[in-house]
Amino acid sequence: MAPKVSGFRFSGIAAGIKKNGRPDLALAVADEPAVGAAVFTRNLVRAAPVVIAEQRIRAGAVRAILVNSGNANACTGQPGLDATLATTAALANALKVPVEQVIPASTGVIGALLPAPRIVDHVGPLIAALREDDHEAFAAAICTTDRWPKVAHVELAGGRVNVLGIAKGAGMIHPDMGPPQATLLGFLFTDARIDRGSLERALGSAVDATFNASSVDGDTSTNDTIVALASGKSGNVPEAELTAAFTAVSAALTRSIIADGEGSEHVAELAVTGLPSAELARSVARVIATSLLVKTALQGKDPNWGRILAAAGRAGVRFDPSVARLSIGGVEIVRGGVAVGAEAEQQAARHMRGPSYRIELELGAGAGSASYLMTDLGHGYVDVNASYRS
Amino acid sequence: MAPKVSGFRFSGIAAGIKKNGRPDLALAVADEPAVGAAVFTRNLVRAAPVVIAEQRIRAGAVRAILVNSGNANACTGQPGLDATLATTAALANALKVPVEQVIPASTGVIGALLPAPRIVDHVGPLIAALREDDHEAFAAAICTTDRWPKVAHVELAGGRVNVLGIAKGAGMIHPDMGPPQATLLGFLFTDARIDRGSLERALGSAVDATFNASSVDGDTSTNDTIVALASGKSGNVPEAELTAAFTAVSAALTRSIIADGEGSEHVAELAVTGLPSAELARSVARVIATSLLVKTALQGKDPNWGRILAAAGRAGVRFDPSVARLSIGGVEIVRGGVAVGAEAEQQAARHMRGPSYRIELELGAGAGSASYLMTDLGHGYVDVNASYRS
Repeated sequence: MAPKVSGFRFSGIAAGIKKNGRPDLALAVADEPAVGAAVFTRNLVRAAPVVIAEQRIRAGAVRAILVNSGNANACTGQPGLDATLATTAALANALKVPVEQVIPASTGVIGALLPAPRIVDHVGPLIAALREDDHEAFAAAICTTDRWPKVAHVELAGGRVNVLGIAKGAGMIHPDMGPPQATLLGFLFTDARIDRGSLERALGSAVDATFNASSVDGDTSTNDTIVALASGKSGNVPEAELTAAFTAVSAALTRSIIADGEGSEHVAELAVTGLPSAELARSVARVIATSLLVKTALQGKDPNWGRILAAAGRAGVRFDPSVARLSIGGVEIVRGGVAVGAEAEQQAARHMRGPSYRIELELGAGAGSASYLMTDLGHGYVDVNASYRS
Repeated sequence: MAPKVSGFRFSGIAAGIKKNGRPDLALAVADEPAVGAAVFTRNLVRAAPVVIAEQRIRAGAVRAILVNSGNANACTGQPGLDATLATTAALANALKVPVEQVIPASTGVIGALLPAPRIVDHVGPLIAALREDDHEAFAAAICTTDRWPKVAHVELAGGRVNVLGIAKGAGMIHPDMGPPQATLLGFLFTDARIDRGSLERALGSAVDATFNASSVDGDTSTNDTIVALASGKSGNVPEAELTAAFTAVSAALTRSIIADGEGSEHVAELAVTGLPSAELARSVARVIATSLLVKTALQGKDPNWGRILAAAGRAGVRFDPSVARLSIGGVEIVRGGVAVGAEAEQQAARHMRGPSYRIELELGAGAGSASYLMTDLGHGYVDVNASYRS
């Protein structure tokens, strides 16, 4: 199925940025200025495209998104900024749109200057390849270590309105994005008619509930960017309905990214409940989700609940360990802070052989809860990241 | 060389707690009550021996330290407390000393009840094996995944006064201990004559500068414990001299633990300088030292400075990335926030093949600096921790 989102066209080609010759340059164009909103990484070290995109999105009108993979253009100083200015200017010129309406995004190696001439040379073929139904080419061209492209689609208003999400990411995944603040890249396209404030709120809410509650490796990227564009070519939808659709699409993309976590074999949905507030619950969930000992236990299919409790205990959140309950795959293995028994653990271990399962940790009677998507850590992660750049 | 610390005797035997039959029960006895001080894990989830040791050290007088490996007796509830009470009572009874003067410590698997009867049954042989110069047996019996025992010795006052340090630890190493607050276990024995306040200050200062500024995997244990005992059998030493000696011994033990980090092949001494305060510098150092992407780059001998800067940028500390300088093995590879060049990186990469090297990150002109000992992350870590319990 190739869902069309009225008002947008997509393309993706190989411009020679990646050494292996795979697609590395992606373009999305709005036929008329679209309403735009974005969130960017909260990392203090921000790539050149993030700096420029953040300035440009403020005006709220967007004609194009230009994305390259294979090079993050981060930590590249003024030459990096100049490179992004040059590539977006070449595209704006060819499209005959204001350069301020071109949003750049980059992903790949940090510290190497973006090869602007290669991108400028490929602007013509990139525009020539634009098609209303070729979001798959866009999705493929933004991938780096991804094993598969990430696309999700939701219909609203009885199929009249569409939300299409495209994302990439497999490592350096520990998003921390805020209004306005992802090498997670995500793009949401909708043909809904919606004002900018509503679009910003819908995006912020969706990102916080999904991308920001997930982690592959605990490293927040210098390039994380999520952009939402609304063409207004179809009908009106209430903000609440758009928020729900953005959240559903973002949740699907997040799950795909976490499942594609570098070297990971399992996705665990971690739920922490029973604390005084959702914020405290998320703090505990984040520490568990990023614990190396928990992640290697998941790799080993070992219901090593002691490591989970120990990680919770160093989160800086007060709770009574003696009331803790923990279940994996619905099998309770800890009750009152101590082990239920060997048989329960064997049952839980069977669930851990599967590709995904739930881990539920109850730490008291409070109403605060939080969910977090996490992965195991295996040899593949070491392989990918000990050799990624060299 | 077998340094003797007057007033102490040591032993270590196999009591059948470890499945592989290796030594797992260690004892240190002070001939007369020693002045004692200790720091324990700040993890909210604290093992039974930590709870009991913390109560008992408050009196400041210690006759014995009883340590087992192979079982952490953590997350074991009241039965766990009862087990530690029973083992220390059996030892106190056999030694004819007050039970309050016996300090317990445990390390090993979390969540399994300590097999108290095995320890009680071996109290006799453990006491019979005590020798003034057998700290090596003690050091061997406290090991878990350690590839070697850790012992360090410093002489003070022209050789008249001794400080002997014994430690264990290879994983779950991210100490966070405070007055009063390791599965880092460390024991410092001195024959210096010193009052309790001075001993506590010397220990606190030494731990903060060494153990607490190191990380294997970012996971703070439920059992971390460091105990210092002073027998007073030799001469007086000024507190400053004892502090220096404690720090030197602790630094040697910390380096040995980090070098023995599970699956690690390199030790990097990370120095972060130029920030407004030492506390801010340590915050940045801690995030870099625990970054999976930095640790895998070290494994790959890749001077991937972009990952180091990106980690610094998510530490929540303000700095100007455009003034950042970074050197590895004394070779400057980043100046003014951007790459010096490929040749410099090749030189730095040569240093990274060695077992240890320095990484120096300068983030401004401030006077605040911090050092941190860190390791790479390799396949060995995954092997050890995906199979440790099962």
